Amino acid sequence: MPLAGITAVRRLCTAARQYPHTVQLQTRWNDNDAFGHVNNVFYYAFMDDAVNAHLIASGVQQTRFVAESSCRYLAPLQYPQPVEVGMGVTRLGRSSVSYAIGIYSHPANAIAGGPTSGGRELCATGTFVHVYVDGAGRPTPMAECTRAALEAIRMDDGSDA
Amino acid sequence: MPLAGITAVRRLCTAARQYPHTVQLQTRWNDNDAFGHVNNVFYYAFMDDAVNAHLIASGVQQTRFVAESSCRYLAPLQYPQPVEVGMGVTRLGRSSVSYAIGIYSHPANAIAGGPTSGGRELCATGTFVHVYVDGAGRPTPMAECTRAALEAIRMDDGSDA
Amino acid sequence: MPLAGITAVRRLCTAARQYPHTVQLQTRWNDNDAFGHVNNVFYYAFMDDAVNAHLIASGVQQTRFVAESSCRYLAPLQYPQPVEVGMGVTRLGRSSVSYAIGIYSHPANAIAGGPTSGGRELCATGTFVHVYVDGAGRPTPMAECTRAALEAIRMDDGSDA
Amino acid sequence: MPLAGITAVRRLCTAARQYPHTVQLQTRWNDNDAFGHVNNVFYYAFMDDAVNAHLIASGVQQTRFVAESSCRYLAPLQYPQPVEVGMGVTRLGRSSVSYAIGIYSHPANAIAGGPTSGGRELCATGTFVHVYVDGAGRPTPMAECTRAALEAIRMDDGSDA
Repeated sequence: MPLAGITAVRRLCTAARQYPHTVQLQTRWNDNDAFGHVNNVFYYAFMDDAVNAHLIASGVQQTRFVAESSCRYLAPLQYPQPVEVGMGVTRLGRSSVSYAIGIYSHPANAIAGGPTSGGRELCATGTFVHVYVDGAGRPTPMAECTRAALEAIRMDDGSDA
Repeated sequence: MPLAGITAVRRLCTAARQYPHTVQLQTRWNDNDAFGHVNNVFYYAFMDDAVNAHLIASGVQQTRFVAESSCRYLAPLQYPQPVEVGMGVTRLGRSSVSYAIGIYSHPANAIAGGPTSGGRELCATGTFVHVYVDGAGRPTPMAECTRAALEAIRMDDGSDA
Repeated sequence: MPLAGITAVRRLCTAARQYPHTVQLQTRWNDNDAFGHVNNVFYYAFMDDAVNAHLIASGVQQTRFVAESSCRYLAPLQYPQPVEVGMGVTRLGRSSVSYAIGIYSHPANAIAGGPTSGGRELCATGTFVHVYVDGAGRPTPMAECTRAALEAIRMDDGSDA
Repeated sequence: MPLAGITAVRRLCTAARQYPHTVQLQTRWNDNDAFGHVNNVFYYAFMDDAVNAHLIASGVQQTRFVAESSCRYLAPLQYPQPVEVGMGVTRLGRSSVSYAIGIYSHPANAIAGGPTSGGRELCATGTFVHVYVDGAGRPTPMAECTRAALEAIRMDDGSDA
């Protein structure tokens, strides 16, 4: 479970960031751990889902491996809150791509009707790096279609998270 | 699934690191994802397990939140490989603690008899930060017992991973 | 992963069943196992989520334990397919309740726009038994509010699945 | 989380059962749910792991699908308890096989040194059915090697769980 309370400053700084693409995800009953909050590990499942959902929806089938990931936990999540994942590409190389990711909660009850338009809170920020590989697991240039899908969600500032 | 192949240099650099404490963990059948490798998310479950196992075994019951974590993926893992997690404390503050973590595979078959003494390979390095909190989720100084457990696995170099 | 192919008859028999309540759930990238299908274990996560979502949405806070569960796998699911879980109460005792559950896939892509109204397929049927307990874990009569929530989704035929 | 308390009779009846094969498994920190017990869903992960570990250790590579599974929860498990899974084949058909499974806890702390020889408690009993399939997902006869692996753990009484 993430840290609550001391990170107001950090949260304000990052809340202003605009993510070019968002994905709506559900939490699950057993995401919650013994402390009644979504276990820290599942934040990475949210990132993994959001990144792969965008690639699949864009028709990308090229094999990729995760090279790095990171997460800063700002506020706790709790089932049945829905999650909104904001994401954008911060660096687009020949075979690798870096994402900045923001994980938001909504005050609305997930079951009653899903995310509301207002009042979302930034609960975590993350980074995620994919490397595209060939059949032997060696880095290989991205296909046109892959690159186009990633260019489409490039972040304005271009800075790393 | 993690990146295979290009990171030989990084792996050699980190392989020499000595972790003061190790924990033996199992992989599970459904840790493997559609690519037949342990999904990247579960590396954080290994870190979470290793850190909490050490705390529980040391008698620590103080509430803590995860503030940050990160992972660099160096080589793929695959069920039924067992995992050895090396860990050490790199920074010990008043209410927070940072760990450096190494995740190793063993060539031996987990089922046949567990880890062998030789031939282990560094598959990932990670960092993990806990903040100890009071009942309201505010950072609070570590108890004596907590601090002692963490001092016991402090890394010699004291540097962050 | 579930059995594909041989169970056409069983599927036809059960597809006609009307579930009084349905819940829409997402699959996740790492629900898929090494065979590229949703791992059999996660069908129980879908049941657990559906049952608990209904209870939480109904305001039920009484502690309950799972006493029994079962699943018959009829057709494979695969991320990113969304899942619709149909459920109804088949037996309502003093402290325990039995559910019949049907897990359906939709041909529509979950990411593109969620479940369509037609073409859903029954992928699994399940049973799930909760026992309401007191603080010591002993069976205790359901509260009025709990009973009302369960009566509301009682199945017409009243038969066990 | 499973039912505690009322099932002493059932537990005594089943505790006497002798399983021809046992597998030692670990629990994980985030197996625990909001009630501080291993979530009911993970009992099926233990079954899945035990069955597949035996098959992999026996050299079986034939594709199989899970057709049915079930679990009766008798007593709660809690991380960091280790788990012992007892298993045996109760029915061996041409293309399908049924297992009876018992999930046991040990009083010993998993971290301190693993399962002790005495004092184990039956926490759940389960059933698990695999169907061996061809490339198109149609039931296909088991290979010699598969059948031999399953014959080796056939239960004396031959009865279904």
